[in-house]
Amino acid sequence: MDNSVICAFATPPGRGAIAVARVSGEGAIALCEEITRLRDGRKLSACPARALLVGDIMDGETCLDEAMIALFRSPRSFTGEESVEISCHGSVYIQQRLLQLLVAAGARIASPGEFTRRAFLNGKIDLPRAEAVMDLVSANTPVAHDMAMKQMRGGFSSGLEALREELLRVASLVELELDFAEEEVTFADHHELLAIARHAREVIVGLRDSFSLGNVLKNGVPAAIVGPPNAGKSTLLNTLAREERAIVSPREGTTRDAIEEIINIRGIDFRFIDTAGIRETDDEIEAMGVERAIAAIKRSRVVLLLVDAPRLSSFPCYRDRVREHLSPGASLVILLNKIDVMDAPDTLAGEIRALYPGETFLPLSARTGEGVDDLLHFLFSVVATDMHVSPVLVSNARHHESLARAAESLDRLLEGLSSGLGGELLSRDLRDALHYIGEITGEITTREILGNIFKNFCIGK
Amino acid sequence: MDNSVICAFATPPGRGAIAVARVSGEGAIALCEEITRLRDGRKLSACPARALLVGDIMDGETCLDEAMIALFRSPRSFTGEESVEISCHGSVYIQQRLLQLLVAAGARIASPGEFTRRAFLNGKIDLPRAEAVMDLVSANTPVAHDMAMKQMRGGFSSGLEALREELLRVASLVELELDFAEEEVTFADHHELLAIARHAREVIVGLRDSFSLGNVLKNGVPAAIVGPPNAGKSTLLNTLAREERAIVSPREGTTRDAIEEIINIRGIDFRFIDTAGIRETDDEIEAMGVERAIAAIKRSRVVLLLVDAPRLSSFPCYRDRVREHLSPGASLVILLNKIDVMDAPDTLAGEIRALYPGETFLPLSARTGEGVDDLLHFLFSVVATDMHVSPVLVSNARHHESLARAAESLDRLLEGLSSGLGGELLSRDLRDALHYIGEITGEITTREILGNIFKNFCIGK
Repeated sequence: MDNSVICAFATPPGRGAIAVARVSGEGAIALCEEITRLRDGRKLSACPARALLVGDIMDGETCLDEAMIALFRSPRSFTGEESVEISCHGSVYIQQRLLQLLVAAGARIASPGEFTRRAFLNGKIDLPRAEAVMDLVSANTPVAHDMAMKQMRGGFSSGLEALREELLRVASLVELELDFAEEEVTFADHHELLAIARHAREVIVGLRDSFSLGNVLKNGVPAAIVGPPNAGKSTLLNTLAREERAIVSPREGTTRDAIEEIINIRGIDFRFIDTAGIRETDDEIEAMGVERAIAAIKRSRVVLLLVDAPRLSSFPCYRDRVREHLSPGASLVILLNKIDVMDAPDTLAGEIRALYPGETFLPLSARTGEGVDDLLHFLFSVVATDMHVSPVLVSNARHHESLARAAESLDRLLEGLSSGLGGELLSRDLRDALHYIGEITGEITTREILGNIFKNFCIGK
Repeated sequence: MDNSVICAFATPPGRGAIAVARVSGEGAIALCEEITRLRDGRKLSACPARALLVGDIMDGETCLDEAMIALFRSPRSFTGEESVEISCHGSVYIQQRLLQLLVAAGARIASPGEFTRRAFLNGKIDLPRAEAVMDLVSANTPVAHDMAMKQMRGGFSSGLEALREELLRVASLVELELDFAEEEVTFADHHELLAIARHAREVIVGLRDSFSLGNVLKNGVPAAIVGPPNAGKSTLLNTLAREERAIVSPREGTTRDAIEEIINIRGIDFRFIDTAGIRETDDEIEAMGVERAIAAIKRSRVVLLLVDAPRLSSFPCYRDRVREHLSPGASLVILLNKIDVMDAPDTLAGEIRALYPGETFLPLSARTGEGVDDLLHFLFSVVATDMHVSPVLVSNARHHESLARAAESLDRLLEGLSSGLGGELLSRDLRDALHYIGEITGEITTREILGNIFKNFCIGK
């Protein structure tokens, strides 16, 4: 394992009042001693850890800057290695020069996520927690922040850890049985194995399925706005954006259509997808629009079907088409738009509710904003209700992948147990399940897995 | 004086691994105690100063983030007030939310430079040092950094302080004399007064005159490139930029012409001004160009006259025009361009040097880059030589203004002394000189002066 001294600024790039450099690795304190001079004349290495020391950063014989320096001795540091944090003035020149001085003294510039990677490799945090650090730094909404924070504080990893211990214990008994196969000894209690496997499957499937919510909470809840042309789809988007005073901007990597807009509603990001009207057509370009609309419905968690309340003739056909493509678990709300130009919108709403008792109807005016509050409340509560059902949410695609594979292995194991399969096959399924659970918690890692995880971190983290 | 609790992030804005919030003012520790919970259960206010404490930032009953917290007790802090520094994860959400929590607990967001302003008002640093903090954070080049660092470490302010003490002493004697005017008593030794005033004038004029260099080192050395059309001015600029691998970009507030480019040569910023050819003309637009070229020469510290070496017929006329407008102390270098298309450039250079023994000639090819190293060396050494002459440089326009006024008052005082003026007039000139010196060191300030100084600081400084 590489424990050479690495350095980087942990504060955002650019000019500020102060900037903080991190130096970590074996010999970090001695290395920093070379380029600093404490105000009170003490040697850096002779100072207590976790105290703020005042000194000069020395560029040869001249003082580059006055700095506050803090020491961390192994293993009581973020990385687990001996570390130094140097707070200097935040000029671009000082930051550049300090890194040059550190490199000249023998450090190298840290690669993205290298501090957190070392924290993991030194057993300071498990892998889900390390990944949560990055999610935490990237979280823009209270909900995304909350998920990352829960994961950083342990989240599901301690539960998985316990599960893995149990499975490991029965797995070793099953393996022992195989070693003594010719003597027909039974070590493992197959009833116990069944109970443990069932419990593990339940936990893992629950976590796996929470991903669909966790992922949308992290990246934005997809919400298609569909309906006939001129029903007021764009007007509605503009009104939503204005009501929430949102900074409406596509976020990197999340916008698959040019017409997606992210609007934050009470702390939850929604990715609204404005679509072309859905109808049978011979026109090729319109057909493309229709295909995109259907795709948008399919991947949405909430679908807003906007109809022109004064002209409801085409509504039943639209409703059927949308219901046809709605994904399982997704919600549909039917917005009766343009109530501002109607005489008796409530009567109409009452009548249509009676006709379709299973549907949610909301009368509103996208133009005047009337009724939009009810829509905001509806959107928020659709997601908030789901959130209350799952206290722990998986929001990381890597975890979801491993959970899905672990669930498959456990399914095979349970099937094998019920059909009286031999120990060899049971043992293979158990080992597979253990492998995939271990991938999540970090017991089983490869250089490649770690590389993929940490490459998206920022430098200095 | 306002000592209410203020807060701001001191690290650059945006996302990073960590961000540091500063909280300062009476009650800052108690205020932070409300929104934090230390890991070891201690109360924040019961903890020692200048130790790194680990705790949670509490958003009501949920944990917003895990943080490192450091206390500073009055007067041992940057501002002189009790202060808290909170290092949290650098997500935009956490930064926003932490400020909201601090404000909800009774703090207010600091205005630009307010921490440094308080450091000054509490006597922790004098005004030139406070101003140097901002220069230090803004410095982009080693030279600008060095000037700011010297000023922050005392620079000329202790010298001015001593000078002011001496002047103050003789001034009080002169005033005393005035009180006993009718009794014709002499308290002040006019020989001593003369000696002190002369010394003060010498120091102050020296500092005043160092501004012209200090200012250009801070903002870039103005260097006009002039010469006939097609002599290769733009080619030269491109070559200089490439040679130094400089990030060539106009800097805010420094670019008066669209054709200025800043190139950093061995740590010194040069502002190159590409001009139109200088010649008599009837064409109005060209005339404007000529006026701009003359203005560029007048404000340049170095002028590069670029001539087409193979076609030197117009050179004498150009040289005379440039010399006519060169400002005192500025350097002229004559670049014999296009030596790459000549048979015997050295012969030509020798001949022309013999004709104009006082001028500096450098043969080069802007196109191939031959000889450009000599030019870089020339440019650097013109400025470096000046720098060695003045060890302390004034780079602040406010200081220059006050130094110039103090020098004027001392001139009047010396004139008065030599013409035997009465005590009343001498006393007025002395008071004026003391006032202007006091403005620099900060003994004499007004709300307006302070407002002007600190408004350009960043928030969090």
